[in-house]
Amino acid sequence: MNILIVYAHPDPQSLNSALKDYAVQHLQAAGHAVQVSDLYAMRWKPTLEAGETAGPDVLREQEKLLWADTVIFQFPLWWFSMPAIMKGWVERVYTYGFGYGVGEHSDQRWGNRYGEGTLAGKRAMLMVTAGGWEPHYSLRGINGPMEDVLFPIQHGMLYYPGMEVLPPFLIYRTSRMDEGRFDQVSEALGQRLDTLESTAPIPFRRQNHGDYDIPALTLKEHILPGRSGLEIHVQSAA
Amino acid sequence: MNILIVYAHPDPQSLNSALKDYAVQHLQAAGHAVQVSDLYAMRWKPTLEAGETAGPDVLREQEKLLWADTVIFQFPLWWFSMPAIMKGWVERVYTYGFGYGVGEHSDQRWGNRYGEGTLAGKRAMLMVTAGGWEPHYSLRGINGPMEDVLFPIQHGMLYYPGMEVLPPFLIYRTSRMDEGRFDQVSEALGQRLDTLESTAPIPFRRQNHGDYDIPALTLKEHILPGRSGLEIHVQSAA
Repeated sequence: MNILIVYAHPDPQSLNSALKDYAVQHLQAAGHAVQVSDLYAMRWKPTLEAGETAGPDVLREQEKLLWADTVIFQFPLWWFSMPAIMKGWVERVYTYGFGYGVGEHSDQRWGNRYGEGTLAGKRAMLMVTAGGWEPHYSLRGINGPMEDVLFPIQHGMLYYPGMEVLPPFLIYRTSRMDEGRFDQVSEALGQRLDTLESTAPIPFRRQNHGDYDIPALTLKEHILPGRSGLEIHVQSAA
Repeated sequence: MNILIVYAHPDPQSLNSALKDYAVQHLQAAGHAVQVSDLYAMRWKPTLEAGETAGPDVLREQEKLLWADTVIFQFPLWWFSMPAIMKGWVERVYTYGFGYGVGEHSDQRWGNRYGEGTLAGKRAMLMVTAGGWEPHYSLRGINGPMEDVLFPIQHGMLYYPGMEVLPPFLIYRTSRMDEGRFDQVSEALGQRLDTLESTAPIPFRRQNHGDYDIPALTLKEHILPGRSGLEIHVQSAA
């Protein structure tokens, strides 16, 4: 497979950097072709300007996305989202006609998005470190469930332009990392990387395939009646 | 009151710019002192570097926050979050000991955060424009309920360092804006600005006041038993 890792951490001595290096070596050893967009090392410009047209830096990232079969977004969770430099990568690379504004809008379909679009057929996976503890991000944890915290990214930035989204690879409480735990974490990461092609994606509902009223884009009344919230957009919701 | 508007839009001809100008004039006419951090105009540096210490640009923003009684964050919703330049404002201005890492960690309390902290006693409000339609962000809308989409910001960036969070001022379907609708929108905005001091904030639960187990920071079993999701962290949840 062709695998693109979009990576954002400022410190080459960080846990994230070590895991990124581990991932590249592991994937290459398994015969995959790997490209890394190391946004800090590239000094990626995060700021989308008024009337900006796609320059060479943006076109290069779009080419990498089109080349990739699987895209891994790796970052530390800062203020419950991705670092600004990666958010700026999304804003600048997902141009109109590429990341959004694709396809027709009619009574039948509302653009090629949420399961369709430029990046359809590809897989994506988040690889996220958090300083907080796992229970803080559990179903009743104060930070909100991690799947809800990541919804704007997994559903809104990865599934939106068409990618299937694999369950995220998460590491909590990163300040408590010693050699023994690093070995455990990298082994678990290796297993996830070995199964990128076989892991079942999160079954987000496709927008244009009957589950939503168009153009309101609300879940049809007979599906999970009376329910609301983010989890109703996943098919497995009980 | 002292009011700080943290503002991010690249285009001085935009709807956001017009609403920002309207807000400044309206607030000043009512006798308030207003400062604006116009991040694009200031060419704010969005990228947090490794080992960064707070420079003059960061200290100036911290002083503005400490000066303010109310802070308004105004931005267009891009990819279901704030623009990268504003995310980078949060990352760089919320330094350790200012925005996080405040207060003791013990069996009784887990730092001064979520209702306590450096910015306690202040109010905050989001003022957000979205291209999508209101039903797309409704309780069963495909983008997720707007209050859930904004949870990482309202709860994770505003309430976290201690600010009370007023209900957001939202404008949908911004491509359909003519003079008549602009007048309606700015009148509605004016009413919100006139009631900044009297509007009831979103009753997010305070972390250290008995609702959460410490250090797991999960909502105590007897509160909304069996429930989960983001809305359980708001006291009014039925």
